[in-house]
Amino acid sequence: MSDPLFQRVALIGIGLIGSSLARVMRREKLAREIIISTRSEATLKRAMELELGDYYYLNAAKAVEGADLVILCTPVGACEQVAKQIAPHLSEGAIVTDVGSVKAAVIAAVKPHLPTTVHFIAGHPVAGTEYSGPDAGFASLFENRRCILTPEEGTSPAALEKLIKYWQSCGSEVETMAPEHHDLVLAVVSHLPHIIAYNIVGTADDLETVTKSEVIKYSASGFRDFTRLASSDPTMWRDVCLNNKDAILEMLARFSEDLSALQRAIRWGDGDSLFNLFTRTRGIRKQLIEAGQESPAPNFGRQNEAGDPAQ
Amino acid sequence: MSDPLFQRVALIGIGLIGSSLARVMRREKLAREIIISTRSEATLKRAMELELGDYYYLNAAKAVEGADLVILCTPVGACEQVAKQIAPHLSEGAIVTDVGSVKAAVIAAVKPHLPTTVHFIAGHPVAGTEYSGPDAGFASLFENRRCILTPEEGTSPAALEKLIKYWQSCGSEVETMAPEHHDLVLAVVSHLPHIIAYNIVGTADDLETVTKSEVIKYSASGFRDFTRLASSDPTMWRDVCLNNKDAILEMLARFSEDLSALQRAIRWGDGDSLFNLFTRTRGIRKQLIEAGQESPAPNFGRQNEAGDPAQ
Repeated sequence: MSDPLFQRVALIGIGLIGSSLARVMRREKLAREIIISTRSEATLKRAMELELGDYYYLNAAKAVEGADLVILCTPVGACEQVAKQIAPHLSEGAIVTDVGSVKAAVIAAVKPHLPTTVHFIAGHPVAGTEYSGPDAGFASLFENRRCILTPEEGTSPAALEKLIKYWQSCGSEVETMAPEHHDLVLAVVSHLPHIIAYNIVGTADDLETVTKSEVIKYSASGFRDFTRLASSDPTMWRDVCLNNKDAILEMLARFSEDLSALQRAIRWGDGDSLFNLFTRTRGIRKQLIEAGQESPAPNFGRQNEAGDPAQ
Repeated sequence: MSDPLFQRVALIGIGLIGSSLARVMRREKLAREIIISTRSEATLKRAMELELGDYYYLNAAKAVEGADLVILCTPVGACEQVAKQIAPHLSEGAIVTDVGSVKAAVIAAVKPHLPTTVHFIAGHPVAGTEYSGPDAGFASLFENRRCILTPEEGTSPAALEKLIKYWQSCGSEVETMAPEHHDLVLAVVSHLPHIIAYNIVGTADDLETVTKSEVIKYSASGFRDFTRLASSDPTMWRDVCLNNKDAILEMLARFSEDLSALQRAIRWGDGDSLFNLFTRTRGIRKQLIEAGQESPAPNFGRQNEAGDPAQ
């Protein structure tokens, strides 16, 4: 048996991403020891019941001692506090990374606190579900998904190479890009969709002319698709909104401009404009499916339909 | 064997809904004869190849002769023209209905042209997928789904009862309501979600700072959920927008107001407001799942994921 990639990996935070990493690391034998840390006693207890790691700590500073890889798996807003706490306890030469959906703000919050003897490389596995917590993770979460690393100038090539190998071993295809570009890309493919979904579900919830039971009964006609994103972890998404403000506001401005034009086309009965937009958007889904990023099955292939969704 | 519910059912239009009706009628033996009509020669030929009916006509006037049930399954915008064309050829006592996502405008467009000797009852099976055409239909489309009928004052109770029985035999749970209320409910649960989905996919398609290949690669982080609705039939959705203008503009105004408030919370770093909204919307999905209207499986239970989406 070959040596594992890392001796001692500390996961700070054991939600959907952290617990998926614990599971895939075990399956792929990527670490000799898996150390788990979370501030919540109940969550730590649950991680122990699930046997996700080898050692468990409420104190992140204890968890990182002797670790050659430390992964911050907390909501983005907690990263600075964790960095301050673990900094004096990190081993020389350790690689420190994170999994947040925002990169520039995390780098600004974390890096100044870390000793120069460790390698900090920010990262983001672009994968997830609408569920959260240690029970929600699964070993194959990262397969067929991208992981974006945003190394800065001066990053050790050896450390970067090792971290790339780690994510590849988890099943990811790894890409590198500048943190600012990451934040712009994610603002459009992830942050804007979540914000719009939260907003439309809130709008429907507020109506006085249509009852909530009507919204639920007839939701299969479109609304229910939005409820999945709108049921994602509130803490995580609050932190994303607060920490990628500029890119999100830019995307929201574009979205609102486009929506005003669409609204105008509806008001003035401009059928050609509507038809042209509705035709253009159809092609994008086709490309997603061809790229293996989406299911071609009708209604996403939902399995709870009474009917058989197969054509 | 009991007598079928209808002797001769004419389907005018043989897309997703029409072809699903043909299939379920055959399976449940709801009609002695199924007559299929569509203006497109290619579509009619395809319906024949699929053996969806017993007789096939390009001319809707011929198709309705002798029918005791006539179902308009065309896009909403085509209903008036079809009504004019078939009116002189309808049998006395025939039930005429439709399946459009808009009710008040369809009633206004169709009813004035029909003879008083037929029973016109507008309807809407709230069911569908993002696919269209005669190949997209399947017999179980209407199961576990609602069908809304919007009978007006003076509607024959016997005709209404027979139409209710028909939809129940197709697997639907039937409800009745006023056409204007239907249009308001559907504006929020169906029309607004489709318009928002078309809009966000259009916005992403227009960016110059993020490439289309990046949008596709990272779409699993949220964006891809919107592409399903945004790949729905452009003609159908153009007609819905043009024919339910007032209710749609009202819902768009509310949505935009709410989005402005959300945007402001992001700009001013109001984390509490964000957290409260993101928490409130979570509950709605739970209710959808409990009502059997949605799958609890992560990521809708999509089947093309490399990973196992089970928890």
